[in-house]
Amino acid sequence: MVQRRESSSVLVGGVQIGGGALIVVQSMTNTDTRNADDTLAQIRRLAEAGCEIVRVAIPHADAMEGFARVCEQSPLPVVADIHFDYRLAVEAARCGAAKLRINPGNIGDLARVDAVIDAAGEAGIPIRIGVNAGSLAAEYADADLPLADKLAASARSFCGHFESRGFTDIVVSAKASSVGATVDAYRMLAAELPYPLHIGITEAGTSLAGTVKSAVGLGVLLSEGIGDTLRVSLTAPPEEEVAVAWQILAALDLRRRGPELISCPTCGRCEVDLVPIAAEVERRLKASTANVKVAVMGCAVNGPGEAREADVGVAAGKGVGLLFRHGEPVRKVPEAEIVSALFEEIDRLS
Amino acid sequence: MVQRRESSSVLVGGVQIGGGALIVVQSMTNTDTRNADDTLAQIRRLAEAGCEIVRVAIPHADAMEGFARVCEQSPLPVVADIHFDYRLAVEAARCGAAKLRINPGNIGDLARVDAVIDAAGEAGIPIRIGVNAGSLAAEYADADLPLADKLAASARSFCGHFESRGFTDIVVSAKASSVGATVDAYRMLAAELPYPLHIGITEAGTSLAGTVKSAVGLGVLLSEGIGDTLRVSLTAPPEEEVAVAWQILAALDLRRRGPELISCPTCGRCEVDLVPIAAEVERRLKASTANVKVAVMGCAVNGPGEAREADVGVAAGKGVGLLFRHGEPVRKVPEAEIVSALFEEIDRLS
Repeated sequence: MVQRRESSSVLVGGVQIGGGALIVVQSMTNTDTRNADDTLAQIRRLAEAGCEIVRVAIPHADAMEGFARVCEQSPLPVVADIHFDYRLAVEAARCGAAKLRINPGNIGDLARVDAVIDAAGEAGIPIRIGVNAGSLAAEYADADLPLADKLAASARSFCGHFESRGFTDIVVSAKASSVGATVDAYRMLAAELPYPLHIGITEAGTSLAGTVKSAVGLGVLLSEGIGDTLRVSLTAPPEEEVAVAWQILAALDLRRRGPELISCPTCGRCEVDLVPIAAEVERRLKASTANVKVAVMGCAVNGPGEAREADVGVAAGKGVGLLFRHGEPVRKVPEAEIVSALFEEIDRLS
Repeated sequence: MVQRRESSSVLVGGVQIGGGALIVVQSMTNTDTRNADDTLAQIRRLAEAGCEIVRVAIPHADAMEGFARVCEQSPLPVVADIHFDYRLAVEAARCGAAKLRINPGNIGDLARVDAVIDAAGEAGIPIRIGVNAGSLAAEYADADLPLADKLAASARSFCGHFESRGFTDIVVSAKASSVGATVDAYRMLAAELPYPLHIGITEAGTSLAGTVKSAVGLGVLLSEGIGDTLRVSLTAPPEEEVAVAWQILAALDLRRRGPELISCPTCGRCEVDLVPIAAEVERRLKASTANVKVAVMGCAVNGPGEAREADVGVAAGKGVGLLFRHGEPVRKVPEAEIVSALFEEIDRLS
């Protein structure tokens, strides 16, 4: 359905971004990088949740030793996130980073940028040019332009410098906490640059607000074919970011991880207690990676129709559930047995 | 930023839908409609959460007495949700419904539809033509067309019949559980019909999946100017639907209810325990309807930049927070006092 924008291809460890690859899910650790064990444990949890590339901050030189060990033992390619001090980026490239992320707004003069480019070139790793509304260089921050234009101009100018040095192993991002500004900036970059785009809404907020903001903003971009890798930013445990990222991709049929659950909102027509039934089905489906579509429906209005479209479905009546398998009604069970009967049918599929 | 599509105007009780009005937030009760007290209590909670029009199902004739009392005492305009039995719609119009919602897929032959149209005309209330993928009439369900085309064709044909009877006090919806099909159907209807559109993703699922699906689908439509009223469908308490609806509108700067909270995702640079701080700030801001922008940021990278853009902000350092008011640094407080100091500054704004 979605026509993806074409872009160049970048390799991060063994994971391809752009160039026709599937959209890659990223997140970022929030442990103290000096504590490699904590950081690795979080990366393993992230990998289990479906994260494919992980970013790790190197705030100071004393985090480099931990970072090196993380790179060595991480099950996912590790991106070094560097601000302010270009020497940390140079060092990270030598310590096993699979990609560097630097921010044009705070890395300083171009001689320093060149040192980073050269280090990445020697290590054979890509660089993400990560522009952020909260940390634009003064020449852009103070310009009399809409925020989206400032973000795009800063990214473009940095790309131009990289190209003049013959380095094109680039991923680009331009994030703001405003959905409108972010979407507009990425539209400009998508039209103007050949590089894969890392998309995200920055400082999106706590779970609910951040989830909605990210889903709206990234949903609009992805539906236009823009975005080769995404990171959902939430003020919440990073595993939640990964779950939301996958839900966004699934909503647009771009990628799916595990089963799909269709369930109705319940209303005055519903004659079983559907909310806990749907929650229990969701909880049990989480353990599954089967590509199966399950419908849990509360009444006879849309119930049979949706249940028929699903691989396995239930449409509730008064204290009972009518089970469907591949569109055919199978049997009727009492309310208390709906969940177990549904999973019997799911197990029969495989 | 968003250019709204033009549409005719419809009045539901005192609430205008379309014709340039602000986008209206709806939800639906899931109490037993026969129990008017329960239903009214839920409607009051929904109103408090920001719901502006409420829909109530009338599954059988024995719910009519409760429905009539709900209409009489509800603080919000009440829409009667009717399926299968046109006589319930006719009766609901006489019992005080502010709008009727019927589904072309299950209301039966046109003589019955005409009885509903006439009853609405006499009562001076509008009708929503609510097409749903799970309950399409057989002539559309079996057609060899993409789902979006079936949804749009069913809605269009029903509108045509209403018009032939001189009734144009219409709101239209065409929902599916597939984001892609729903978006495509609404794009067709937006281009072809003059009526306001009620948008929603049906059977979107449980809290997380349903929130993301609704935010993606409704976000895409709203960003294109499509949608005059929305209902988020979640298999969860309906108050959650209202909260998500408002977050979607806020994300696109279409409408805002209460304060905006910007907060960063935290990372290895963060030297305070930011997640509980942000959660506490969010919890305390919920009580406020002030139009204020608050930033809670974990470090010096984007912290000062975002905190400066906010009315009140905090950028954390090692065990401390630097407070900003309207872009100016105000004072530094220890970590334990960040929340209380932030609210002191917020209180000073008013």
